[in-house]
Amino acid sequence: MRVIDISRTIAADMVVYKDKPEKMPQMVQTKSFAEHGANETVINIDSHTGTHADAFFHMLEKGKTIEQIPADRFIGPCQVLDFTKVKDKITEKDLGKFKVARNEIILLKTKKKIEGTFNFSFTYLDKTAAAYLAKKGVKLVGIDELGIERDQEKHDTHVILFKKGIPIVEGLDLTKVKQGKYLFIGLPVKIKQGDGAPVRAVLVDGKL
Amino acid sequence: MRVIDISRTIAADMVVYKDKPEKMPQMVQTKSFAEHGANETVINIDSHTGTHADAFFHMLEKGKTIEQIPADRFIGPCQVLDFTKVKDKITEKDLGKFKVARNEIILLKTKKKIEGTFNFSFTYLDKTAAAYLAKKGVKLVGIDELGIERDQEKHDTHVILFKKGIPIVEGLDLTKVKQGKYLFIGLPVKIKQGDGAPVRAVLVDGKL
Repeated sequence: MRVIDISRTIAADMVVYKDKPEKMPQMVQTKSFAEHGANETVINIDSHTGTHADAFFHMLEKGKTIEQIPADRFIGPCQVLDFTKVKDKITEKDLGKFKVARNEIILLKTKKKIEGTFNFSFTYLDKTAAAYLAKKGVKLVGIDELGIERDQEKHDTHVILFKKGIPIVEGLDLTKVKQGKYLFIGLPVKIKQGDGAPVRAVLVDGKL
Repeated sequence: MRVIDISRTIAADMVVYKDKPEKMPQMVQTKSFAEHGANETVINIDSHTGTHADAFFHMLEKGKTIEQIPADRFIGPCQVLDFTKVKDKITEKDLGKFKVARNEIILLKTKKKIEGTFNFSFTYLDKTAAAYLAKKGVKLVGIDELGIERDQEKHDTHVILFKKGIPIVEGLDLTKVKQGKYLFIGLPVKIKQGDGAPVRAVLVDGKL
């Protein structure tokens, strides 16, 4: 078996959504080995920075929060679909070229490398594609961008998936991953009433 | 297959190490559905609060930091050992009653319920037991306490395990888990130069 790390590293200089300074994480050392015999840190992080999961409460007024979604929703057989040649947005038509199974986790690869600054014209999943995946009854949708949609009124993509109980993982790093089938593991940190949470995501290739 | 969540919930009123106020997490809402159409939060958390992993750098001056330890170290066959009847500390003698395999993940169950305040006389893994597990070549050691040792000069238990490349996961919730064999998944959030990081840990019972 091979474990492929598909998480971005949380760092003070990492790329954040729309390059907003308030979304940049801060790590403050509170103990040092030299002085205390141990290193310790406080982490200050936006719930939607880096590789993270969106809970339904992120975009639904009465949606479930992150700790209310069962952990097994974030583990399962997955398919990485390569859309690196698609520009602007992924539509139902683009998705229709692939076989998508019920309860499968779908990861959307849109880029060959992670940019050093936020890409305002990133490839997103449009509402026709979200409706298609919702109808198929997939388990989770992941993307290698810091958002799964842009410029859509009322956050259609999020809302369509969330209303069907499908969580979203954003900010993956799929640059080293080829299109194909894997086992996905991407559990969010269990934050009480969390609208989202950091995730350490991996793909397992072969038998665990 | 059954996925058992063995993580503690991160909350403003959760139990923290030695009940230190500076170790208590804070969640601050930065956007609300009513005002912005989306809920967002900033999380302020000590790297050793709740269910978390210790990197070698936590107690070794030049030890690897959390993002430098390969992800597959935090996934694998595991054994939960019940030490709820052991008082004060777990020794080599206590561990000797079990068969421990090379590369196995060992989780120590010391309590039947999570206390509402920090238990200063918690059951810990003493240095003879740490040396035993290090010699056996286990993959990882986890415990349901917020620390794996207390009152030992120079943090012997941590240092013995870390010097053998064995990471530690602390703050598990094993109250619903019986002694036995499982698959452990407990990946730490990938923090640059992290001495530790939050973990969402689960056990898988049966085939994944």
